Amino acid sequence: MHNPFVPETLEGWSVLHLMYRVRWDRLRQHPSRDRERMAAEAVQALAVPDAGSTAFVQVLGHKADLMFVCFRRGFEPLAQAQLALSRTELHDALDATSSYVSVVELGMYEMTAKIHEQLGAKYKPGSDEFEQAFDREMEAQRQRVMNRLFLDLPKARYVCFYPMNKRRGEALNWYSESFERRAAMMREHGMIGRTYAGKVTQVISGSIGYDDWEWGVDLFAEDPLVFKKLIYEMRFDEASAKFAEFGPFYTGLQFAPDQLDVYLDGGVPQLA
Amino acid sequence: MHNPFVPETLEGWSVLHLMYRVRWDRLRQHPSRDRERMAAEAVQALAVPDAGSTAFVQVLGHKADLMFVCFRRGFEPLAQAQLALSRTELHDALDATSSYVSVVELGMYEMTAKIHEQLGAKYKPGSDEFEQAFDREMEAQRQRVMNRLFLDLPKARYVCFYPMNKRRGEALNWYSESFERRAAMMREHGMIGRTYAGKVTQVISGSIGYDDWEWGVDLFAEDPLVFKKLIYEMRFDEASAKFAEFGPFYTGLQFAPDQLDVYLDGGVPQLA
Amino acid sequence: MHNPFVPETLEGWSVLHLMYRVRWDRLRQHPSRDRERMAAEAVQALAVPDAGSTAFVQVLGHKADLMFVCFRRGFEPLAQAQLALSRTELHDALDATSSYVSVVELGMYEMTAKIHEQLGAKYKPGSDEFEQAFDREMEAQRQRVMNRLFLDLPKARYVCFYPMNKRRGEALNWYSESFERRAAMMREHGMIGRTYAGKVTQVISGSIGYDDWEWGVDLFAEDPLVFKKLIYEMRFDEASAKFAEFGPFYTGLQFAPDQLDVYLDGGVPQLA
Amino acid sequence: MHNPFVPETLEGWSVLHLMYRVRWDRLRQHPSRDRERMAAEAVQALAVPDAGSTAFVQVLGHKADLMFVCFRRGFEPLAQAQLALSRTELHDALDATSSYVSVVELGMYEMTAKIHEQLGAKYKPGSDEFEQAFDREMEAQRQRVMNRLFLDLPKARYVCFYPMNKRRGEALNWYSESFERRAAMMREHGMIGRTYAGKVTQVISGSIGYDDWEWGVDLFAEDPLVFKKLIYEMRFDEASAKFAEFGPFYTGLQFAPDQLDVYLDGGVPQLA
Amino acid sequence: MHNPFVPETLEGWSVLHLMYRVRWDRLRQHPSRDRERMAAEAVQALAVPDAGSTAFVQVLGHKADLMFVCFRRGFEPLAQAQLALSRTELHDALDATSSYVSVVELGMYEMTAKIHEQLGAKYKPGSDEFEQAFDREMEAQRQRVMNRLFLDLPKARYVCFYPMNKRRGEALNWYSESFERRAAMMREHGMIGRTYAGKVTQVISGSIGYDDWEWGVDLFAEDPLVFKKLIYEMRFDEASAKFAEFGPFYTGLQFAPDQLDVYLDGGVPQLA
Repeated sequence: MHNPFVPETLEGWSVLHLMYRVRWDRLRQHPSRDRERMAAEAVQALAVPDAGSTAFVQVLGHKADLMFVCFRRGFEPLAQAQLALSRTELHDALDATSSYVSVVELGMYEMTAKIHEQLGAKYKPGSDEFEQAFDREMEAQRQRVMNRLFLDLPKARYVCFYPMNKRRGEALNWYSESFERRAAMMREHGMIGRTYAGKVTQVISGSIGYDDWEWGVDLFAEDPLVFKKLIYEMRFDEASAKFAEFGPFYTGLQFAPDQLDVYLDGGVPQLA
Repeated sequence: MHNPFVPETLEGWSVLHLMYRVRWDRLRQHPSRDRERMAAEAVQALAVPDAGSTAFVQVLGHKADLMFVCFRRGFEPLAQAQLALSRTELHDALDATSSYVSVVELGMYEMTAKIHEQLGAKYKPGSDEFEQAFDREMEAQRQRVMNRLFLDLPKARYVCFYPMNKRRGEALNWYSESFERRAAMMREHGMIGRTYAGKVTQVISGSIGYDDWEWGVDLFAEDPLVFKKLIYEMRFDEASAKFAEFGPFYTGLQFAPDQLDVYLDGGVPQLA
Repeated sequence: MHNPFVPETLEGWSVLHLMYRVRWDRLRQHPSRDRERMAAEAVQALAVPDAGSTAFVQVLGHKADLMFVCFRRGFEPLAQAQLALSRTELHDALDATSSYVSVVELGMYEMTAKIHEQLGAKYKPGSDEFEQAFDREMEAQRQRVMNRLFLDLPKARYVCFYPMNKRRGEALNWYSESFERRAAMMREHGMIGRTYAGKVTQVISGSIGYDDWEWGVDLFAEDPLVFKKLIYEMRFDEASAKFAEFGPFYTGLQFAPDQLDVYLDGGVPQLA
Repeated sequence: MHNPFVPETLEGWSVLHLMYRVRWDRLRQHPSRDRERMAAEAVQALAVPDAGSTAFVQVLGHKADLMFVCFRRGFEPLAQAQLALSRTELHDALDATSSYVSVVELGMYEMTAKIHEQLGAKYKPGSDEFEQAFDREMEAQRQRVMNRLFLDLPKARYVCFYPMNKRRGEALNWYSESFERRAAMMREHGMIGRTYAGKVTQVISGSIGYDDWEWGVDLFAEDPLVFKKLIYEMRFDEASAKFAEFGPFYTGLQFAPDQLDVYLDGGVPQLA
Repeated sequence: MHNPFVPETLEGWSVLHLMYRVRWDRLRQHPSRDRERMAAEAVQALAVPDAGSTAFVQVLGHKADLMFVCFRRGFEPLAQAQLALSRTELHDALDATSSYVSVVELGMYEMTAKIHEQLGAKYKPGSDEFEQAFDREMEAQRQRVMNRLFLDLPKARYVCFYPMNKRRGEALNWYSESFERRAAMMREHGMIGRTYAGKVTQVISGSIGYDDWEWGVDLFAEDPLVFKKLIYEMRFDEASAKFAEFGPFYTGLQFAPDQLDVYLDGGVPQLA
């Protein structure tokens, strides 16, 4: 049933972020050609079976050395990817430090309000006619944004990932605000984002029911300063200032899968 | 003594969730037939002695690789199951990362109010007659819902587990709300759940006095998107928006016990 | 000096809870007769030197496999017990996961008020006469409750341990409430407890100055459902609803020390 | 510049608390005379080079087995002590679990107010004359309390250490209270402490800028019940009830350095 | 687009703090000349490729033994430094315990207000003329403070590092305060800092979008008491008292890179 207090969402790729520390002491014991073989096997494990993509990231700092971001058609191929990587020889030299399970999501505040209004004028809300017409509208909308739901992982050099919640505090509670207030705050939030268009690509994925925060955010850019400028500016908009709670941040350099052996051998791996 | 401020509860299976990471580096050292033997022994350890069931789940992400959900007649057979698994050869390649101890529970807000009202009209509340009649009513009720208290673990492919509390904040405190307000909020909460009937099966277990949160929630569905849609919609009802606090989420794919060796050998295990 | 805002307390046994995970992979390498010897040595280490008792508990879940609860005459014999256990062969297969240091304590809200009132009518509060008469009254009281201060560890099958605080929030602060309000809330709290008499034995120990929470609570019962019913009902009384903060819960099955080798060999150990 | 809102402080010893768990499995592999040699080397590493003292403590519970408290002339000899201990053979059987970096500190609320008042009557606050006269007064004060700034570590049997903060909450904020209110609360706090004179010795050290809490507190007594009584009573004074936040508590038995080998061999070590 | 609610920032070095515990048990197994070789290789790995500097710090306490602070031209050379160190023989004896990713940052509250006012009088805010003139002003400003954005790491003996946030509480929220209020609080905050000029050097780096806190603060001084005095005094200014949240503190002694082998051999390493 379509609930007028709940923004409709459209879903795309299933997403798995996997973060690992490299146990360099184990790798050091191997000759270079072993590391080459280990890299090749790991790249193979994360190869995309039918549809989707995988990003390889060299992470800065101690929280992880490597982050793999997997976009797949569902949880089955995600399970397959994680299991395949776990079974590789390279995995013996990796310690899993974090992960994130989510689904690419477009939140549709404005569309939700519009459809409820238009269809509410024609049909009794909650009636079969209303629900079916609503489903048809959502499906049409889904077709229109298919390329954003099933995007390729952006090829920019710098990546920033963090999970976040909308606050449910005792005084400030996103989920107790009216639909209109929430929609207005999201509109303001989106307008700031739009001034960074071309400099940064943002992918939002929903994780309610899957992981410990409500959303995951991936940012991709050619200049890492853009991450700081964008997030700092957004921190002053009302949706963020009052209602955003942020988890840990992972920052790193994306590289081409075929550069994994370069990395294991001590060279900063390149994107292309 | 039956306290009119406290909702009565009915209890079923004793429940133990056990989460483990697999130490793939240890498993890799074994030939395939060793892993077969290890799988068989572990399945045997978790076999149900007299009554109950056990779910096997391949978890996504780093929090666990495997989750076992044990429904048993009491804490004794739970202790037996955990101990038997701990003594297996496979256990040498498992690291326990989390667990949850609880008892399947039906909260009876509406029934509690109704019995107090009906019996309070006949007997002096707290009198022996009142208490005995109350106990008889509860027992009758228990017989009526026996199949929900002692259900079989649902056979759906996707599983989501998380623990939760009702908030006891300085301003918003579930336990300081009146019985009527709590009952009304639970009714609204339940009505949203009902619109998902047929798409998701929910099992609530109580863990006050047993574990670090007040309740455990297991959801089972054939489509994992349902978890996100359901929990997101519920987040806007008053019971959740104002009073729910959520612990870590575990999401995964349920599989048949006889597929454990397939999993250890690198294949995504199937449910049937 | 006896402070009329502070409830007097009487103290009994010094208490040490020790929680361990068993490293089953290490134990597996030994033949059965080694485990027998290891069990015997550990039981000897925890044997009571002169006065007190020790409870052995098989804990459910991943937080611990074994919990030992030591009641002793003071911190010296507690130090001796922990050190003796640390030096055993079995200890090589144990990982300490938690512990709790406390002293059995009876809080005397009603008695405190009564003595202050009675002696305040005779002597100037704070005068030597007042203080000495107060000390005599407390000592007489101590003699009267000696068997509760120096109780034997109850022999019930199920055990539940958790630490707790009284809240010191910005709006709700137990320590800023008047003595009378606190006394009244503790009276209500105690009355609920009394309706469970015979079904559960409760031991409160104070840990202010010794450990990270203010009190430890041990519950003993023959039916673990009683823990859930009791604590859930109490959660609605004002002292708990508004002011209680709870730490981690440990739940398990008490067993006789001479069953430790049965446990190490894979059998659920029995109490008698 | 002397700021009239900030209480002046006087500083003494630089302090380093070092907490370790003993890896008894490693020690067990050695014959007794090895442990003697290891103890002797560790005692030597913590020997005081020119001025100061070192306390050895057997800690109760799992948070640590050993705590060393080092008083030294500055951070250089603290660095030297930690490094020397790290390089010993015994250190191979120790796991560092915690530590605390601080400087013995006397807070001077009353003196600060008095000097500002007296000198403010003579000189323009902030003027060179004012500042220099203030410095001279503080130096004179420092000479008067030299024995409290550079005390010997008390030789009592029982030790309790915990770090603490003054709350900076949204409603209750120590640092937003007026100087006079803070001074009055500290006076009340100190008066309770004084009623325990002779039973307990308290050492306060400041750690703002050095470690994760604002102050460290060490208590020394011949009877550990005194810790509980003192801290419980203080919890009701306004400074503690409303503004104190406490970190983890470490409780143990102080012993003479030459008893370290007794401890490693399984005997509870004695103070003298 | 220049947003009048958001203070402009100027950026300099990219910064990576790397904290490690030394596994002394591993180092002990090597003869002294091995440690010399390992030190030389690690110093080489952290040598500055083209521009920047690296600080070596012996940290007090258990949180880390060594901290390396890397100033580099961007994230690429930071990635190169971390990877080079990870690949050294010494790294086999290091456990990464923490890290911090940030960019040297000057916050420009006063300048931001001034430029908006001046250019707003000439151009329509948001117009191309306005934006371009604004960019020119910022670039001119950047040239003026180039030596502060690309400073050398100060050579003082004592170092203190901590991350911090501006509070986004339910009642007190830095990001909901007006630009003018924030600017006034930062001015007061800066004035206290200025009274410590010559005694302490402060480096602020921004980490929004890069790491788990919003800013990192490094302090350098010849006397560690200055850290305590400065931070304690600042804690009473409004910006800190009401809005600052502090992460973990790391305190230690800076030393010259060529003293690393002295340290590994047990001598407190010197700065020059």
